[in-house]
Amino acid sequence: MKRMAEVGWRSRAAKVLPRGMYGHQAVQGLPSNYPQFYSRAEGCKVWDLDGKEYIDLLCGYGPNILGYGDQVVEEAAAEQAKERDTATGPATVMVELAEKLVSLTPGADWAMFAKNGNDSTQLAVTIARAATGRKKVLVQPQGYHGASPVWTPGRPGVLASDHAHQVGYVYNQLSSLMEAATSCEDDLAAVIVSAFDYRYSRNLELPTEEFAKGVRDLCDRTGALLIVDDVRAGFRLGLGGSWHALHGIEADLICYSKAISNGHALSALVGSKRCRDHGAEKVFATGSFWFSSAAQAAALATIVQLEKRNAIEQMMTSGRLLTEGLRSQAQSLGLEVIISGPPTMPFLTFVGDTPMDRPRAATFCETACRHGVLLHPHHNWFVSLAHTSIEVELCLAATQKAMMEVKRVHYG
Amino acid sequence: MKRMAEVGWRSRAAKVLPRGMYGHQAVQGLPSNYPQFYSRAEGCKVWDLDGKEYIDLLCGYGPNILGYGDQVVEEAAAEQAKERDTATGPATVMVELAEKLVSLTPGADWAMFAKNGNDSTQLAVTIARAATGRKKVLVQPQGYHGASPVWTPGRPGVLASDHAHQVGYVYNQLSSLMEAATSCEDDLAAVIVSAFDYRYSRNLELPTEEFAKGVRDLCDRTGALLIVDDVRAGFRLGLGGSWHALHGIEADLICYSKAISNGHALSALVGSKRCRDHGAEKVFATGSFWFSSAAQAAALATIVQLEKRNAIEQMMTSGRLLTEGLRSQAQSLGLEVIISGPPTMPFLTFVGDTPMDRPRAATFCETACRHGVLLHPHHNWFVSLAHTSIEVELCLAATQKAMMEVKRVHYG
Repeated sequence: MKRMAEVGWRSRAAKVLPRGMYGHQAVQGLPSNYPQFYSRAEGCKVWDLDGKEYIDLLCGYGPNILGYGDQVVEEAAAEQAKERDTATGPATVMVELAEKLVSLTPGADWAMFAKNGNDSTQLAVTIARAATGRKKVLVQPQGYHGASPVWTPGRPGVLASDHAHQVGYVYNQLSSLMEAATSCEDDLAAVIVSAFDYRYSRNLELPTEEFAKGVRDLCDRTGALLIVDDVRAGFRLGLGGSWHALHGIEADLICYSKAISNGHALSALVGSKRCRDHGAEKVFATGSFWFSSAAQAAALATIVQLEKRNAIEQMMTSGRLLTEGLRSQAQSLGLEVIISGPPTMPFLTFVGDTPMDRPRAATFCETACRHGVLLHPHHNWFVSLAHTSIEVELCLAATQKAMMEVKRVHYG
Repeated sequence: MKRMAEVGWRSRAAKVLPRGMYGHQAVQGLPSNYPQFYSRAEGCKVWDLDGKEYIDLLCGYGPNILGYGDQVVEEAAAEQAKERDTATGPATVMVELAEKLVSLTPGADWAMFAKNGNDSTQLAVTIARAATGRKKVLVQPQGYHGASPVWTPGRPGVLASDHAHQVGYVYNQLSSLMEAATSCEDDLAAVIVSAFDYRYSRNLELPTEEFAKGVRDLCDRTGALLIVDDVRAGFRLGLGGSWHALHGIEADLICYSKAISNGHALSALVGSKRCRDHGAEKVFATGSFWFSSAAQAAALATIVQLEKRNAIEQMMTSGRLLTEGLRSQAQSLGLEVIISGPPTMPFLTFVGDTPMDRPRAATFCETACRHGVLLHPHHNWFVSLAHTSIEVELCLAATQKAMMEVKRVHYG
């Protein structure tokens, strides 16, 4: 009588939710032992409906950065909500949060808030077009900047016109960027870059210094604006923007979401003076819950805690412990693996698997899941501050078994 | 030393927020005595930073339906958040909420959740295009379906290509709809309609039965899908969709947000079987916080409370008391006014004012605000369940003074 609750809820879900579940939290692409539903989350752990406990290295696909249910953040949000949350005008915490982001971000002048990462990436493009009076935007095909049709070419219901005036480039390939820019002539409004290259199921690639500086130079030379999509990576590489942490680059527009409020629904756009008067001050931007205070209070508390608890360094240490452990496990078993990405957002693939077909990774993740650790065979993982060396060691105990299972099944 | 706190915070906001505040909650278009910030909200009241209390007939521009900080809803949200909110998979409350919406909505088969009203309107169009394999969508120009470029032609940074394959019609004018449909030939994917015509600063217009039935017939005849944008009106005309409440129409896709969670950030899309297999089951739709549980628990509690407390009827009664009071005040002073919209979302204009220039309404609203009642000269108002006859009488005491001031200033 295993997993009775999970089975029952999946069957109810199948009736009233498309495909039983949609989007990035649907488990269809994951090994069959992954739970679709979780009843509880705390620190770096989650529990499924049948009471099984997992160390969660997916962190809600990013939002969990201090630990699920972090007490300081939850108290800040609850206290704000007790006074007011969504009302007919904002609370002062909106100003404090904007001040905090501006003060943390080199080159920043203003901030705006929304709900989805997609809101901030789309708004960034609109602001860039308003500020420059130009149309073209350089984008990385198969890069991910949100779920709206603008960013998801080739999906059902999405039209070619949804990507009008977008021109593709190859991440970390400056020549392709220059070629794309040249094709735009005098009409280049912006270049949008992911904090790093995290195309689905591919090994992760950090931006090279040459590429990052080249993008900045291109923008300076042409008057285009540099948009860094920091929705996924924000606050896991640095607190003043990932490209500043990596290469000292000041972006014109930085898009945040996910980890900014430790799980509360919020996104932010932080911008430079250059795109304020004719950009941010001119565009139409609003949403029913964009001024809600509880999530803003949660964000302010999250950022203050990230500073106070020296979170980046702590998470980097845990991430390194994890990735070094994985590397040495693979090595001692003679398994060829590629561990990519920054230590706080690592990803592991097996040589021989391909992005479209990862049987070794599936075995690996399935086994880790059975032993109480949630990983992903196609998507980068996330380390939170709640993943201390104790939890990392527990993860490594599970991955050791998972590596052995890969060896047994695929090389036995 | 009036309004010291407000003045201080406005000056801080001016530094770090575009225009000091952006979007629909910016007070630039309102009389100068309106507060930009509110420190507290409870029931149907809000308090500004300097402690002044207001009866709020804007309800956060819609979200407040049971009363700010409704205890039952807040407890449901807090209890859920204590267990888990944003995690690596959804909680079971997501299924329960979908079941509830489907059971309440005639013709509904499934539900999806997102964060902004705009998410649900865009998703509805994408689903319609996927389900029909067609491109064209009939829209009401100057209708409002969200802040993204797709819905905001003519705004800075918005391109003509953002509205590719949209064809305009005139609300409540069936001939214009038919003409628009004919121009689409075999490529009509959907018709999107607002629950009623609430173009900014115009007198409100409910859909006529002829128009509503005509839209449904057109869709049935052509295989296009009927999308009702119920983001603003949802749950204030009926619990099974506004067009069903008004004219017994079953839509294919109903977009909800605003009042659905009594102020928590959530939107929903409720759809028919007709657009499930090839539409909702096929499209790519996701967001970092679309699976978060606390707002879903808040929505479930909100809807149950709306049913239990007989909210629609109660709000209608309060709304009628308000609008009849306003009408008789105007009449006895010899002021010509137009009171439009449903009783739960009324709007008042003065004959002689125009949509672009409403000096009488400005005097009216400024005076009401001075006497502690928040109205809007350009945007419809919202009645909540917390606006009982006591608060409506207090509102009417303020509007009596406001009407007299209009008479003195503009007809004195």
